[in-house]
Amino acid sequence: MVVIGGDAAGMSAASQARRLRGPDELEIVAFERGTFTSYSACGIPYWVGGEVDGPDALVARTPDEHRSRGIDVRTRTEVTEIDLEGRRVRFRGVGDRPAGPGRWTGYDDLVLATGARPLRPALPGIDAPGVHGVQSLDDGQALFDALEGYGVTPRRAVVVGAGYIGIEMAEALLNRGCAVTVLERGPQPMPTLDPSMGALVRDAMSGMGIETVTGTEVTRIVTGEDGRVCAVATGEREYPADVVVLGLGVRPETSLAEAAGLPLGASGGLLTDPSMRVRGHEHVWAGGDCVEVLDLVSGRPRHVALGTHANKHGRTIGVNIGGGRLTFPGVVGTAVSKVCDLEIARTGLLEDEAEAAGFRFAVVTAESTSRAGYFPGARPMTVRMLAERGTGRLLGVQIVGREGAGKRVDVAAVALMAGMTVQQMTVLDLGYAPPFSPVWDPVQVAARKAVAALESAD
Amino acid sequence: MVVIGGDAAGMSAASQARRLRGPDELEIVAFERGTFTSYSACGIPYWVGGEVDGPDALVARTPDEHRSRGIDVRTRTEVTEIDLEGRRVRFRGVGDRPAGPGRWTGYDDLVLATGARPLRPALPGIDAPGVHGVQSLDDGQALFDALEGYGVTPRRAVVVGAGYIGIEMAEALLNRGCAVTVLERGPQPMPTLDPSMGALVRDAMSGMGIETVTGTEVTRIVTGEDGRVCAVATGEREYPADVVVLGLGVRPETSLAEAAGLPLGASGGLLTDPSMRVRGHEHVWAGGDCVEVLDLVSGRPRHVALGTHANKHGRTIGVNIGGGRLTFPGVVGTAVSKVCDLEIARTGLLEDEAEAAGFRFAVVTAESTSRAGYFPGARPMTVRMLAERGTGRLLGVQIVGREGAGKRVDVAAVALMAGMTVQQMTVLDLGYAPPFSPVWDPVQVAARKAVAALESAD
Repeated sequence: MVVIGGDAAGMSAASQARRLRGPDELEIVAFERGTFTSYSACGIPYWVGGEVDGPDALVARTPDEHRSRGIDVRTRTEVTEIDLEGRRVRFRGVGDRPAGPGRWTGYDDLVLATGARPLRPALPGIDAPGVHGVQSLDDGQALFDALEGYGVTPRRAVVVGAGYIGIEMAEALLNRGCAVTVLERGPQPMPTLDPSMGALVRDAMSGMGIETVTGTEVTRIVTGEDGRVCAVATGEREYPADVVVLGLGVRPETSLAEAAGLPLGASGGLLTDPSMRVRGHEHVWAGGDCVEVLDLVSGRPRHVALGTHANKHGRTIGVNIGGGRLTFPGVVGTAVSKVCDLEIARTGLLEDEAEAAGFRFAVVTAESTSRAGYFPGARPMTVRMLAERGTGRLLGVQIVGREGAGKRVDVAAVALMAGMTVQQMTVLDLGYAPPFSPVWDPVQVAARKAVAALESAD
Repeated sequence: MVVIGGDAAGMSAASQARRLRGPDELEIVAFERGTFTSYSACGIPYWVGGEVDGPDALVARTPDEHRSRGIDVRTRTEVTEIDLEGRRVRFRGVGDRPAGPGRWTGYDDLVLATGARPLRPALPGIDAPGVHGVQSLDDGQALFDALEGYGVTPRRAVVVGAGYIGIEMAEALLNRGCAVTVLERGPQPMPTLDPSMGALVRDAMSGMGIETVTGTEVTRIVTGEDGRVCAVATGEREYPADVVVLGLGVRPETSLAEAAGLPLGASGGLLTDPSMRVRGHEHVWAGGDCVEVLDLVSGRPRHVALGTHANKHGRTIGVNIGGGRLTFPGVVGTAVSKVCDLEIARTGLLEDEAEAAGFRFAVVTAESTSRAGYFPGARPMTVRMLAERGTGRLLGVQIVGREGAGKRVDVAAVALMAGMTVQQMTVLDLGYAPPFSPVWDPVQVAARKAVAALESAD
């Protein structure tokens, strides 16, 4: 078993296979270009923000820990070519000088877990010192060191992109004492929400002192005489910046797979069957940020880069290579995040997505509170819900609120996976006590409103 | 439409019917023995504990607010007899002296929402001053006043019973500066949990300074020379007490219904069909703490006294009387509570209950954390899970932990209502980000363990 990529998907696959098959039955080699294995890139904003010690705390299992479990981890080693016909891969050390052609090693089963690469637009100045991505632990370390190096506050930070990574980095930089500006091309922060919900996020971010500029396009990274970044220019003006963080999202890293002729979807992600086997290739598996998955609500493929999926893919692959049987059915697009104390969550389809998928639906927005209204700490929360006309099927939920808001999306996520209707959601037996919920849980308040909207127009 | 009982179920029914039918179409009269309507009895512990202002804050809608919406609320008025044949009820003022036989009023539809009465064992001294129940707002006021009257701390409080009410009152009394002892007949606090989970609660309560004595039977309330309570006696010893709170659970209050010959189940609760119509009585409806409901996991009737169900029953009744169609399918037995910062939740069946219902099952206990292990505020939580052998169907979940533990039970509650297997639960698309969850949500960690347990024994 040869694994390419030593993070969540790859090492979960390796670990799971090892649990089922001992070293005498199965040899496992894992190649990792960097120095870390099984790390939480999702934790980088909290490390940069000073809430979490890094990078060690973000590593779930080190290369040596994997080795002690009988997995031959080769760090600082990259795979440069896959020979499907010959069932072998070519690899070489990353630091090798001169970079040789590398050596070949054969496989019975190959696991592609090459992850994703951050979008990095070809702007003037994009490679200047002071412009940071936050994809790997090495990226995190570089940004962390840069912030430590300044030593004076307030520093001016500009975050490009107001998606999950953008808002999490905005919080981190704020926590580090920076004056933070977020520049977003779209009309609202969080393009993963409907505009009206994104507007709530925007208002909250302003209240936190994060300057949020939307509907603006970055045209240039401005550098000073020392060659370092000193501002970010849009069509309208320049935003002074001591540090710039790119949070523009990611694309599947599948150049190796593409070169080998493996099947890719519209997003560039690998196409697999539910066992996570690459379509048409019995001995090649793929999981994590480099694959497309089935969206169970729209019925269409989708690229979702999330550590929780990567772990599940890896487990699925490991079980199957190890001789068991397991499938990954797909996702419903659940995501949760926060910026300071504002919690943001979604699952299922947005309005645009539901339209694109051809649904006829009602959409409602309901205000409620996280606890019984009279209970200390009860905070307002807004739930937006989409439901199909005719069937009543739940199509999507978005939540914006404070403490206790975000994880409520799980109720809707399970309901989506079960194909429930909003009528059924109104009678769900959810946990109730004043410190935890109003008598009608906020998700059910929205479900009631959705039922009414469906009835009034049916 | 005549409603007996002005709390959650009755007034939800009245309000919902009024929403669908105007005053010119439907006359609505609601009789309430007390002075409050639509109040949250569940909030009493937090009022007594000083976290919530009472009693007004606990009232969702006052009699006058209901009246302004066209509902003829008669407080301090009790119904003394139901004449099913004549479709009329007899009522009289509670304060009437001498209590007359009362007057009759007719109905087209009758709603029984008479609630529950607390268990009050016939012990010597049980009616002594200083012994308090916590069922109604008036009870809450009496206890609140008693605690205010002492003026010195620490006072000694004994709580009899360590179920939900018992532990919530223990917290409240602790918050009021009392030295608190909880006496419980069973081997552990929280008989609504499996013993091993109850043991976790017991240990946590001890850590909070709540003396928790289990396996003990109260034999007598000891009174002093002034006639007031001064101790609680068990078979073994006496526990000094300035105040005693009874938290022994409730039984359906169905004496009126019983006298009228309406059908009652084994618990004494009224039997209804899914539309909340009393079985065999087309014009009589019942909901809230006075009915039995279908347990969707065991397939057996069950009495569950919870405000959230009462509201749902009331809405169902109101829609049906108002000319719509709605059913309440049943419950899965979800409950959540806390004692200080310890969160306690369950849904579905306990081990004993699953055995009694004839299931063959595996049971596992999994340790996890509320957030990513490295994230500040990550707290340990324990999830116990039951799954049916052969089918893999989820049968029940119990959770004990700190912040972020309790409401996670909702994921299992939805899965139970959807009839999911533990295999399906391992691939649920739940919200993940380090501040909210480990990459494998604690419920999924338990589900994985349950799958392994089923496989190892199948």
